[in-house]
Amino acid sequence: MINEITGGVCAAQGFKAAGVHCGVKAGSSPDKNDLALILSDRECTAAGVYTLNRVKAAPIYVTMDHLENGVAWGIVANSGNANACCPQSHENAEAMCAAAAAAVGREPEDFIVASTGVIGQTIHIQAIQAGLPQAAAALSTEGSSAAANAIMTTDTVKKEIAVFFQVGGKEVKIGAIAKGSGMIHPNMGTMLAFVTTDCAITQEMLEDALRDVTGKTFNRVTVDGDTSTNDMCVVLANGAAGNPLIEWKDGDFDTFRDALHHVCRLLARAIAGDGEGASRLITCRMSRARSEESAERLAKAVVASSLVKAAMFGADANWGRVLCAMGYSKAPFRPEHVDISFESSAGSILVCRQGDGLPFNEDRAKEILSQPEVIIAVSLNEGEESAECWGCDLTYDYVKINGDYRT
Amino acid sequence: MINEITGGVCAAQGFKAAGVHCGVKAGSSPDKNDLALILSDRECTAAGVYTLNRVKAAPIYVTMDHLENGVAWGIVANSGNANACCPQSHENAEAMCAAAAAAVGREPEDFIVASTGVIGQTIHIQAIQAGLPQAAAALSTEGSSAAANAIMTTDTVKKEIAVFFQVGGKEVKIGAIAKGSGMIHPNMGTMLAFVTTDCAITQEMLEDALRDVTGKTFNRVTVDGDTSTNDMCVVLANGAAGNPLIEWKDGDFDTFRDALHHVCRLLARAIAGDGEGASRLITCRMSRARSEESAERLAKAVVASSLVKAAMFGADANWGRVLCAMGYSKAPFRPEHVDISFESSAGSILVCRQGDGLPFNEDRAKEILSQPEVIIAVSLNEGEESAECWGCDLTYDYVKINGDYRT
Repeated sequence: MINEITGGVCAAQGFKAAGVHCGVKAGSSPDKNDLALILSDRECTAAGVYTLNRVKAAPIYVTMDHLENGVAWGIVANSGNANACCPQSHENAEAMCAAAAAAVGREPEDFIVASTGVIGQTIHIQAIQAGLPQAAAALSTEGSSAAANAIMTTDTVKKEIAVFFQVGGKEVKIGAIAKGSGMIHPNMGTMLAFVTTDCAITQEMLEDALRDVTGKTFNRVTVDGDTSTNDMCVVLANGAAGNPLIEWKDGDFDTFRDALHHVCRLLARAIAGDGEGASRLITCRMSRARSEESAERLAKAVVASSLVKAAMFGADANWGRVLCAMGYSKAPFRPEHVDISFESSAGSILVCRQGDGLPFNEDRAKEILSQPEVIIAVSLNEGEESAECWGCDLTYDYVKINGDYRT
Repeated sequence: MINEITGGVCAAQGFKAAGVHCGVKAGSSPDKNDLALILSDRECTAAGVYTLNRVKAAPIYVTMDHLENGVAWGIVANSGNANACCPQSHENAEAMCAAAAAAVGREPEDFIVASTGVIGQTIHIQAIQAGLPQAAAALSTEGSSAAANAIMTTDTVKKEIAVFFQVGGKEVKIGAIAKGSGMIHPNMGTMLAFVTTDCAITQEMLEDALRDVTGKTFNRVTVDGDTSTNDMCVVLANGAAGNPLIEWKDGDFDTFRDALHHVCRLLARAIAGDGEGASRLITCRMSRARSEESAERLAKAVVASSLVKAAMFGADANWGRVLCAMGYSKAPFRPEHVDISFESSAGSILVCRQGDGLPFNEDRAKEILSQPEVIIAVSLNEGEESAECWGCDLTYDYVKINGDYRT
């Protein structure tokens, strides 16, 4: 039983957070936070997954280095600059950790560091150094929303969630914040997601749970096919819940992993639905496949297709583009067995049966496709496996946002 | 020495073409041709390359079947309907060949058939059957432009080219027409391209030349990452030039292949520059690579990136997105060695040296990026190989065209 609660990254016992405006980007509004700090009151077991882009921002390397021992105390993150592809970017990422550590009386290696924003411009490290004592002073158990706000870039809604559940008779909580929006494509961490939990769990089990869950949630999201240089998802577990330590893959591990899956799936959907310029969340549900892997590959190709995305923007039941995208996905399937429906809160309509088009009511289809969440439901009629992937429509606003992002 | 001439697919001796309006799509303008016919006065050696999409339109299968013997006499093609994913689509593709054959007194198997347009709607075969006698009557050595017009969908310019060159003391010609615009991604044939030549060449040599050239021209174009169900590039060689038969990979073969490369490269660039909604042609030139394969993969990732394409629309020198796209291309390279410039008829500007951003004049960059053709020039500084790929910017019009294509 997984129950949603408020509190975000501060829901779990022993975690505080803060978000402040320090002026990373010249001329940015003082109302928009750009510096987030998350701190545990005790040492945490920690695990991370990172972008597979060959070009990795400095904070990725510094975080990998700091997490080599599998433990951390906190996270420092900024928006407004990716701290990537610049002279001094490595030194500046280390300087962020050092400033965070100095502000709270810890060591630089205790910190995970993340950045998001424009690539190739030197980060305004002095602003961050000046802001961190302020952030440290603002740390509170009510600080999750301010931290979530601080990591937003072109996001239009804050992404924050928390849940509680039982492990060995103890109440355990998992909370998280995330940012998404652009440069989002299913290939590892995808975007920034910071997860905190008071669960007592070993580093190995935490890492396994995170990898498993990430593969089925964040890695099934695409906004624009561009895998960022800065993506990361990290989880900190401080053990404050006092549950029996999870140290092997027993029922307690499954419970924890399911709760983590619940949290990450909701964030993944929130990231897809709030993709840059998006007007609706598109889910592709690929069912009756011979394997989950092929179902995932097919569903990803559909939600990543520019033509499908543009058709969804126009609420156009152009299912031929769905079948076409499946065709170039390189996953095996038999086109002549495929059924395709469009579904939403307004109903469901079957448009293709066994690979051939059906006559259907265009007005009814338009009504179904005009809802804020649309499901492209494909049945391969070949097996019993399935997978869901999430994306969004391609709109004028995506082009507008990205036609002139830097200036 | 390759010389450009007029005449398109009728430039080579012995070829006639026609384009007429027959009403494939209900309510379409009578001014827009939708049925093309190309005919040789003698049997041709023929070769084709086809979409690798697992979902192939019926005309692809029928053409593969008809070209099994390596010979053909002509091509029949329509726009307005893809003849894909519908009951009777195979029968209708065969019916198109039969009608073309009947109209000119040949056999159905002598014809290559192609369709382009919407997927999943039954093609109006009666309109095509009624139009073919009219097309046959209109066949002429001046008919290339009408045929080129007939295969256009969302294309805004006709794509037609011809060249002459010498083989063994004889003048040989190659001509071609093509259509591109949407569902264009480097993976085989990409779009429709019909090439005619009066060169005397064996089927094996023709096939080898076509595969080699296609790999370096059409397969290096992307408009939207969607590989169509209908792509094909076919070449017909009728031998009318009377040159010594090209039957092995000698100097004459190289001459022919170079001329075919010239023709296909120009068409590939024309398709990229006329991509759906495009306001400019984007070339990515990847140089000083360790291998041509990795250079091609890197350049393709750059021109396929939605974020790079949107930045090019905004004439925004956002080179970080170029490096980011290279990073997720899966090709090996060292980010810290990379130099990036933007070039156009207005000049050239270096924005990144050895992986780090350089200060540059934004106004100057905007001027360079505002031209109708922009080159993203990347030097990997690792070897001596290079490759160019072509694409276009991502504009409001792309979204508009594809948000409501069917209706």
